[in-house]
Amino acid sequence: GFEIQTEDTEYQLQFHNLTQMDGRFYTQAEQTPVHSTFLLPREWYIFSGRLGKPFEYYVAIAQGIDNVNLLDSYLNVNFDPRMNVKIGRYKTPFTYEFYGLGINAMPTPERSLFYNNFGLNRDIGLMAYGALYDKRFDYAVGIFNGTRNGYVDSNDFKDVAALINFRPFTKREGSVLESLNFGGSVNSGLQNSVPIPTILRTNVPTTGNTAIGPQFLTFNSNVRENGLRSLWSLHAAYYYRQLSLIAEWQGGYQSYAPASDLTRRTRLPVDSYYVTLAYFLTGETVSGRGVLKPNRNFDLRKGKFGLGAFELVTRYNYLGIGDQVFTAGLADPNLWTNHLYTVDVGVNWYWSQFVKVYLGWQRAEFGSPVVYAPDRFQRTSDQLWMRFQVYF
Amino acid sequence: GFEIQTEDTEYQLQFHNLTQMDGRFYTQAEQTPVHSTFLLPREWYIFSGRLGKPFEYYVAIAQGIDNVNLLDSYLNVNFDPRMNVKIGRYKTPFTYEFYGLGINAMPTPERSLFYNNFGLNRDIGLMAYGALYDKRFDYAVGIFNGTRNGYVDSNDFKDVAALINFRPFTKREGSVLESLNFGGSVNSGLQNSVPIPTILRTNVPTTGNTAIGPQFLTFNSNVRENGLRSLWSLHAAYYYRQLSLIAEWQGGYQSYAPASDLTRRTRLPVDSYYVTLAYFLTGETVSGRGVLKPNRNFDLRKGKFGLGAFELVTRYNYLGIGDQVFTAGLADPNLWTNHLYTVDVGVNWYWSQFVKVYLGWQRAEFGSPVVYAPDRFQRTSDQLWMRFQVYF
Amino acid sequence: GFEIQTEDTEYQLQFHNLTQMDGRFYTQAEQTPVHSTFLLPREWYIFSGRLGKPFEYYVAIAQGIDNVNLLDSYLNVNFDPRMNVKIGRYKTPFTYEFYGLGINAMPTPERSLFYNNFGLNRDIGLMAYGALYDKRFDYAVGIFNGTRNGYVDSNDFKDVAALINFRPFTKREGSVLESLNFGGSVNSGLQNSVPIPTILRTNVPTTGNTAIGPQFLTFNSNVRENGLRSLWSLHAAYYYRQLSLIAEWQGGYQSYAPASDLTRRTRLPVDSYYVTLAYFLTGETVSGRGVLKPNRNFDLRKGKFGLGAFELVTRYNYLGIGDQVFTAGLADPNLWTNHLYTVDVGVNWYWSQFVKVYLGWQRAEFGSPVVYAPDRFQRTSDQLWMRFQVYF
Repeated sequence: GFEIQTEDTEYQLQFHNLTQMDGRFYTQAEQTPVHSTFLLPREWYIFSGRLGKPFEYYVAIAQGIDNVNLLDSYLNVNFDPRMNVKIGRYKTPFTYEFYGLGINAMPTPERSLFYNNFGLNRDIGLMAYGALYDKRFDYAVGIFNGTRNGYVDSNDFKDVAALINFRPFTKREGSVLESLNFGGSVNSGLQNSVPIPTILRTNVPTTGNTAIGPQFLTFNSNVRENGLRSLWSLHAAYYYRQLSLIAEWQGGYQSYAPASDLTRRTRLPVDSYYVTLAYFLTGETVSGRGVLKPNRNFDLRKGKFGLGAFELVTRYNYLGIGDQVFTAGLADPNLWTNHLYTVDVGVNWYWSQFVKVYLGWQRAEFGSPVVYAPDRFQRTSDQLWMRFQVYF
Repeated sequence: GFEIQTEDTEYQLQFHNLTQMDGRFYTQAEQTPVHSTFLLPREWYIFSGRLGKPFEYYVAIAQGIDNVNLLDSYLNVNFDPRMNVKIGRYKTPFTYEFYGLGINAMPTPERSLFYNNFGLNRDIGLMAYGALYDKRFDYAVGIFNGTRNGYVDSNDFKDVAALINFRPFTKREGSVLESLNFGGSVNSGLQNSVPIPTILRTNVPTTGNTAIGPQFLTFNSNVRENGLRSLWSLHAAYYYRQLSLIAEWQGGYQSYAPASDLTRRTRLPVDSYYVTLAYFLTGETVSGRGVLKPNRNFDLRKGKFGLGAFELVTRYNYLGIGDQVFTAGLADPNLWTNHLYTVDVGVNWYWSQFVKVYLGWQRAEFGSPVVYAPDRFQRTSDQLWMRFQVYF
Repeated sequence: GFEIQTEDTEYQLQFHNLTQMDGRFYTQAEQTPVHSTFLLPREWYIFSGRLGKPFEYYVAIAQGIDNVNLLDSYLNVNFDPRMNVKIGRYKTPFTYEFYGLGINAMPTPERSLFYNNFGLNRDIGLMAYGALYDKRFDYAVGIFNGTRNGYVDSNDFKDVAALINFRPFTKREGSVLESLNFGGSVNSGLQNSVPIPTILRTNVPTTGNTAIGPQFLTFNSNVRENGLRSLWSLHAAYYYRQLSLIAEWQGGYQSYAPASDLTRRTRLPVDSYYVTLAYFLTGETVSGRGVLKPNRNFDLRKGKFGLGAFELVTRYNYLGIGDQVFTAGLADPNLWTNHLYTVDVGVNWYWSQFVKVYLGWQRAEFGSPVVYAPDRFQRTSDQLWMRFQVYF
């Protein structure tokens, strides 16, 4: 980032930017509405800093595929690192992959099936968080609208989201277990709205242009999410030398009902997990997922020649939704599936600490054939995935 | 704001930001589409400065509740403070509460019923303005599209907006009358469009997400604003020591017709006024409404302890629309009312000159019961109002 | 622009801004949806710079008339000026008037009929470009989605766009032919979507608010662009002392079919050209179209008095579309025309290198009467055109 600040460091303005450009190409041709396309999944303009020491601001405007909207906007009140208060719109503390990992620093280009379709994403509310016991324990607990990635609530009830993370050996420098993290998170609240998202997809967080990301389930148009949502996640993350190992088990239930009779509720369970493994071939070491500085930058100029850093990545990700989604008439079993897994294999190529290229393959295997164009079905979806990312 | 400029001060770039986060909670539950919700009424990114002394620019992009759009974009040509010329999109000179008071510096969180529903808001056009007689007299007169908060015109005619303000005793330093302001403003022009706004609400300027702000009148869908609009306002504002006293009497008429027969016009009169009173309990003094620097900042750290500044606020606001709105078939008298008042009582808590918190209560009392959900009516609406604001 | 950079110039952030405010007034009153209006055709916020020497970024967010969206977002990899690689969303190399000339530096306020209705505009993809033979030869070739000004593709096929430009005498300093440019460009690819734009207009690039710019042809609602698009352009541009002379011959074809039977394709040829002439009355000289520094700025202050720079501008622009557009049922011949020309006459008044005012007249002459309001037709359209522009 670029920065201007007063000499006493009390007042500060930073500018950061995240640019992602994807090419997503499918072996299955003539899908609709999904197409093989170049796209810009994220373009973030971030302004952050301080207005005197305890008062930190962070505002970000973002392009997501094809429209611009507010991403983050909050005031952080930091009198003591053991308890900060955050007011505004920001990342909710639900799932480690979301709260703990920046999208710019993920081993895989996008988050999991569970997060994309059941995560709370960003929301507006009030949160307390901090680090206790010499930074061995992190907590965050907040009250939010509960409308996934939303800007206003669609009911009078507010949601709770909370996360804890332990790093018991963080003070044992050099230990094999120094960068071991584990913990859990929850999200719960009453809902009453059209399902968000209505279309469940493999690679698109919450909502977004329908040309992007194969679909595996669409709720019928008369379905409402109505009643209690109660979701949880358990996570473990381990970083050692060149290795990143991240795993999460995610589940819970949401309640649905037909718009014509909101008392006829169905509790729909969901169960999911993923395991991500990443390893640097070029010797760079990690203690978490942040900005990675290659040992040598990618450079073609004489005297500065270098190839950058290479990191192998793989992820297995399963998601299953209860059979009630079909038996209770929430979705059409002839068109959609209620369970699937995806496998990602790829390589992150870091040109410098600011530029990263991902090249990978993703296979999605559906529990039953899903429609990919009128009257045409696929049991698997194969995708070549190319991403260029600039972050500073 | 943060600033970079050349040493000769001829060239300048400033960055300012306004962030507002609200909690609006109603005693009336299960309203629709209105909900008790957290929301971000405003998130403004402002870039301004100079390109050589007479040429000043100001551009701002804004999030309003749930979408991003251009707020301001203008060139100000300033060869002489007695006559500036402003070209582009900016605040129109109609009503003192809008032209004279920044939303960040208002005693109440939002402006009046009249402004929210009948004010011109921002518009595109050309304006001349300046200060004469040793700054004892301000004037502004401009030609605009006349489309409230719009980006293009919906007819070929242009509107006029103009404001004058007297501060006869502004040079008598220390006098009890030093900061007395009074004056008036007008807005007039031919219109031909769907009414803007179509739904009249207590707390939402012009348009915006329907989940925010109780509704008291909705024009029937076949109604057009067609013909002359002629609105005026008289204002007085008085600032002395800890006291702010602002009052405005606002009225005029708009013309409406059914889309099926635009010659069957109805002139609909409107009459409104408000009185706002604000008083600093903690001794801060005011000579207008601008950035307020508390005598002590809110701080919990040892040696820097302070509680910030507290300002009590109250406002009474009445709005009445002619009975023609019902008798001429412009709106349904069984669902809506044509007169109401609101009372606000609250406290502004200034944490620093950059951070402000408002906590208040608003009661709206409707002339007749209005619908708040299908087949359900309320005669009053009570709202707990919480606002966090960062402005720098 | 404003800039902060590290002392070694390796890291750089620049901020640029383009603001345009138009008045467009027609002699033909009561048109619909077109109105005489003030408008903001462009408001661009541009952040650009370097993240270490070979890696250049450029991101821009833009208001266009009435909405905000991403304009540009790319990484430029520059190890050698003979071959740069550009990744992201940016100006495609098709037509000299678009790729070669910034909108802020055009003699006329907007580009040609061909570009507005058939140009590729900005798109997402990968491009290689550079300057060879001592900068006597420029080339650019890229692969793009092919969706005009789009963010995702509407089919699986990708488009090609390429441009070459010769400046054979660029090294002969002072020669009459020093600033002679000529070359050509192409755009080709398979399409399958609703036509973009659906409504062909005189003055609006690709799409945008329908209140702006007279319409001369609207495709029937059942028409799809389906099949091969193959367009080309030949250009010449000559700059000498006070003179700019720019001409382009543009043509090719697009394929259309009814949505009900996509095999019933029609190849629709298009043929167009324009000649633009501009001349500085106040002595400023040009070797291309870039930022123009007036010999004297416009200033009314004593001792600094000046009137700015004046440049006379005229353009003739013809566009013809094949009769198949009517005979194959793609559009209604009773409402629309398939050929027209426009003539622009105006003056650019430069107040400083940052501020420019255009005042001109545009006449459009249609091949047959076109509808301008229900049941009303015009054979010509006359428009008074006023533009204020700030660019830094």
